[in-house]
Amino acid sequence: MSDKPLLRIGLAGLGTVGATVAQQILAGAIDGVELGCVSAREPNKPRGFDISGLPFVADPLDMVADETIDVIVELIGGQDGPAYELVKASLQAGKPVVTANKALLAAHAAELSVLSSGQGGVPIALAYEAAVAGGIPVIKALREGLAGNQIGRLSGILNGTCNYILTRMEEAKLSFEDALDEAQAKGFAEADPTLDISGVDAAQKLSLLSALAFGLAPDYTKMPVAGIQAIAPQDIFFASQFDCVIRLVGVSERHQGAVYQRVTPMLVRRSNNLAQVRQELNAVMVRATPLGDLFLQGPGAGGGATASAVLADIADLALGFGRPLFTGPVSHMQTPLSQKAPEWEYYLRAGLADKPGSMAKATQILAENGVSIEEVIQRSSSDGGGFLPVVFITHEVDESSLNNALAALQQQDVCQGVLCLPIFAD
Amino acid sequence: MSDKPLLRIGLAGLGTVGATVAQQILAGAIDGVELGCVSAREPNKPRGFDISGLPFVADPLDMVADETIDVIVELIGGQDGPAYELVKASLQAGKPVVTANKALLAAHAAELSVLSSGQGGVPIALAYEAAVAGGIPVIKALREGLAGNQIGRLSGILNGTCNYILTRMEEAKLSFEDALDEAQAKGFAEADPTLDISGVDAAQKLSLLSALAFGLAPDYTKMPVAGIQAIAPQDIFFASQFDCVIRLVGVSERHQGAVYQRVTPMLVRRSNNLAQVRQELNAVMVRATPLGDLFLQGPGAGGGATASAVLADIADLALGFGRPLFTGPVSHMQTPLSQKAPEWEYYLRAGLADKPGSMAKATQILAENGVSIEEVIQRSSSDGGGFLPVVFITHEVDESSLNNALAALQQQDVCQGVLCLPIFAD
Repeated sequence: MSDKPLLRIGLAGLGTVGATVAQQILAGAIDGVELGCVSAREPNKPRGFDISGLPFVADPLDMVADETIDVIVELIGGQDGPAYELVKASLQAGKPVVTANKALLAAHAAELSVLSSGQGGVPIALAYEAAVAGGIPVIKALREGLAGNQIGRLSGILNGTCNYILTRMEEAKLSFEDALDEAQAKGFAEADPTLDISGVDAAQKLSLLSALAFGLAPDYTKMPVAGIQAIAPQDIFFASQFDCVIRLVGVSERHQGAVYQRVTPMLVRRSNNLAQVRQELNAVMVRATPLGDLFLQGPGAGGGATASAVLADIADLALGFGRPLFTGPVSHMQTPLSQKAPEWEYYLRAGLADKPGSMAKATQILAENGVSIEEVIQRSSSDGGGFLPVVFITHEVDESSLNNALAALQQQDVCQGVLCLPIFAD
Repeated sequence: MSDKPLLRIGLAGLGTVGATVAQQILAGAIDGVELGCVSAREPNKPRGFDISGLPFVADPLDMVADETIDVIVELIGGQDGPAYELVKASLQAGKPVVTANKALLAAHAAELSVLSSGQGGVPIALAYEAAVAGGIPVIKALREGLAGNQIGRLSGILNGTCNYILTRMEEAKLSFEDALDEAQAKGFAEADPTLDISGVDAAQKLSLLSALAFGLAPDYTKMPVAGIQAIAPQDIFFASQFDCVIRLVGVSERHQGAVYQRVTPMLVRRSNNLAQVRQELNAVMVRATPLGDLFLQGPGAGGGATASAVLADIADLALGFGRPLFTGPVSHMQTPLSQKAPEWEYYLRAGLADKPGSMAKATQILAENGVSIEEVIQRSSSDGGGFLPVVFITHEVDESSLNNALAALQQQDVCQGVLCLPIFAD
C-alpha cells in the first residue's frame, strides 16, 4: 500500500468508543489509515493511552474545513446539536462521514439521505455500521451480503439493555426494577434508561435496517413500539411453561404487498436462535430468497464492539468502497408501510376474579371476537386481591379481532391487568 | 443507475446453483447486471425456466475472449479440469472471476493468488463468498466487517453433510451408516461422500478462512484433519451425559505466537452457539479484539444459499468493489503455522476389559503421562466381548502428553477401541 495516499481521519469524540478507535488506528490496525486530528469535550482527560502527539481541534467543524482531513468520524452522540451540525457540514462539503449515531440518522434520515446522495450523481459516503447492533456487521450483510436476495422478514434483538434485563429476570428471577438496577450498576443501562426500555432505541435501529432490507423510508415514529416495563416475573414464568422466553424483538416483514414493522416484547420458543441470545448480546435474523435464514449474533454495544464497526467502515473508505446512506433520497423510497399486523399467535395474561363464571365470561368474550384458544394455564394462587392470573395462548389471529377482544375483556369487572404479547413465528 | 454501463456476466455451469443465479439476474435482482452468455454441459436439459433467449457458448473459454463479457462466473465445479482452466484464463486476461469452488481455490491458491494480484499493482477480482459456508457472508464479515480487529480464534461448522449426520445420530439415535444413508436420500450428501465425512471439505474451507483471518498461507494438507466416521452412537450418548453434543469443528487459533488449525469432531457444550447449529446448517464463530465474539449461522449448501453468495459477489463487482483472492500472493503470507495444539480438555472413550484391575491400569497410565481426569463414566453393560465402555473427561492437557498416554493405553491388553476427541473451549 506504500504508493497509495494515506486516508487521514478527523475523529470527533473521545469517549469509550472514540478512544478505542484512536488506539487501533494509532497501532496501525488499518493499512493506509492515519489519525489526522481529534476533538473532544475534555481534551485533557486521562484516557490510558498517549494522545500527546495528536493535534486537537477545539471546534469539530474545523475538521471539515481542513483539507488534509479526508474523512470525519462522528462519535459525539446525540440526535441534534454538535453531532448533527458536524455530519451535515461534512456531507455538504463533500467529505465522507462515519458515524455510530442511530438517533441522529433515524431522526434526520430524510435530510441526510439527500446530502449523502450528493450532486451530479456522485454520492458522499455516510457509513453507519456501528449505529445498529454494535459489532455485528449487519449493515454490510444486508446491503452487500444479501444483494440479489428478496428479503421476506427481518427480526432482531437490537437493544442490549433490554436483553440483559430480560435475561436476568429469567435466570436470577429478578423483578424488572432489580434487573434494571443491576444493568445500570454494570454499565449496560444509562442513568436515564427511557430510550432503551421503552423500545425507542430498538425502533430507531429497526427503521434503519428496514430501509436497507425493504427500501422502506425510515420513520420509527410510525411503527407500533412497546417496551419491556410491563413484563412481570410471572410472565417470564408463564412463558417458560410454554417452553418460551421473552425477548424484545424488532420485526419487519412483508405482509399483503406492504411491509409491517413493530418493536415489542415477544414470546420466543427456546428452540429459536433468538431465544438463545442472552445477556447484553444483540442479534439479527433475516429470512431471504434464495438464501434461506441467516442468523447473526454479537456484542451490541460497548466500546470494543462499536469501535470494531467504526473501524470496518473506515477500512472500506480507505479502499474507496464508501456508500451513501441509502441508494437515494428517502423521498424516493416507495415501499408502502402496512398498518395491519400479520396473523400471529399471542400470549394473553390477565387476572380473573376468583369467583364462579369468570373463566366462562373471559373465554366467551374471546370466542365472540374470533380469538381461538390453543392453551390455557391458570395458577391457583391468588394475588391477594381476589384475582387469579390466567394465561391464554391463542391460535393465529388478526390484530383487529384481538384488539376487540382485549377491549371487551378490559371492560369486565371480572378481569384486570391484561397483558398481550405476540409469539414469534419460527 | 441508468447512466452506468451494464455489467455483463458470462455464466459457466447451469446446475442447481447456476440456474438460480441465472433466474435471479434475469429477474433483475441486481441493478446494473445482465446475463451475457451461458455455458453448460447439457445445454438442452429442461431447467424449469426459459433460457431460450440466452446465447449459449460451447466452450467456456470463449467467454474469456468475448470482449462484451465483463465477469466470468465459474460454477462448473471440480478442483482441476475446465473450472481451473477457465478461472486461470480469465485472470490471465485481466477479467474478474466469481466462483463457488473451494476445492479449486484451496488446491491452487498459490498460483491463483499471483494471477489475482495482477500486474503493476492492479489486482484482478477473484470473489469466492460462495466457496465457504454457502450463504453466510463470512468472507465479507472476516475481510471487511472485522477489518481493524485482531482475530484470536476462528471456529466453524463448515460441512453441512457431517452436521446433518451428527444431528440425526443425536435426535433420532441413528447409527453413522443409517444417518449417512438418510443424508444421501435427502440430497445432503454426495454419492461418494468421502470428501465430506473425512473432514477434507471442511479443511479446504478452513484454510481459506485462516488465510483471511490470520494471513496464513492456505494449505489444508498441512493441518490435522479427522472426519466423523469413528463417531458411534455411544459417543453421542456419553457426550449428552456431559451436557455436550458432537460437532465437526474447524478451529484456527493463535497459540504461542503462531496459528494452530485443525478439523476434528469435538464435544461442544449445549450452551455454546455451535451446539445449537443443527441439521445441514453451517456456522462460523470469530473471537476478535476489540469486537468480542461474533457468531454467524446460515445454510451452508444448496442451490439457494450458494446462489445468494454468488449474487452478492456479482453485486460488489457491479459497484466496482471487487477484491483479489488475498491481499497478495500466498508466497508473501508469513504467519507461521503451529504444529502444537493449545492445551485443550479431551473426551477419551475406551473399552476396558471387564476384570479386576483394568480401570486401575488405565488411570495409572493416564496419571503417569500427566493426563489428569476431571470426570469418569463407566457403563455397566458390556459390549458382549468382555469389554466395558468407559469415558474420561480430562483436564486441559498438552497434546504430546495426551498422545503418549493414548499410545500407552493402546498397547494394553485390557484396553481397546480408544477414541479421543477435544472438547471445544467456550
